[in-house]
Amino acid sequence: MSEDCLFCKIIKKEIPADIVYEDDQVLAFRDISPQAPLHVLIIPHKHISTINDASENDEKLLGYMLLTAAKIARENQVDEAGYRLVINCNEQGGQTVFHVHLHLLAGRQLTRLG
Amino acid sequence: MSEDCLFCKIIKKEIPADIVYEDDQVLAFRDISPQAPLHVLIIPHKHISTINDASENDEKLLGYMLLTAAKIARENQVDEAGYRLVINCNEQGGQTVFHVHLHLLAGRQLTRLG
Repeated sequence: MSEDCLFCKIIKKEIPADIVYEDDQVLAFRDISPQAPLHVLIIPHKHISTINDASENDEKLLGYMLLTAAKIARENQVDEAGYRLVINCNEQGGQTVFHVHLHLLAGRQLTRLG
Repeated sequence: MSEDCLFCKIIKKEIPADIVYEDDQVLAFRDISPQAPLHVLIIPHKHISTINDASENDEKLLGYMLLTAAKIARENQVDEAGYRLVINCNEQGGQTVFHVHLHLLAGRQLTRLG
């Protein structure tokens, strides 16, 4: 946990969020500025600032984040129509909160990659 | 391996590609229609059609794909400036080749998520 991290505060329930899934490893909640009809962020409980800071020890956790996103897509019945998963890293990637997060976007045709 | 899969053919070296990294689990090569100055696809040797078809057994492999992308970003010295990682699933996600692939995009400001 990082004291000043917005997403760590959401995990600690110090800041409210529209949570769609939680277990002992990850938390998923709706983006407050959705860019698609379904826009969920999947974050690890463990504070990792950027994907650059992930190590071999995080391999399973990172894979689990992707599988959790696919599960949420299924639960929201967008898995067949399709969806996009995005991790942004640092400024040129468009990362604004420095706690690794996976975007799940669905519900409309996704086009250019950025 | 899938007989008719373009990416399986690249893995089998039946079709050429501008390969930037390979090991016993993954292959990475430059996208032939780059959407950013650096645009690399990271694919697993194992044929998985979409991220919907990945199972718990693939958890480590999926995490390894993300860590490999981060490594390629470091090697190309775009890790500090930033980059974006994307997995598209099915039509609305924009998936066109049905062998799971992770896009690494860098070298310009990435903006909207799709």
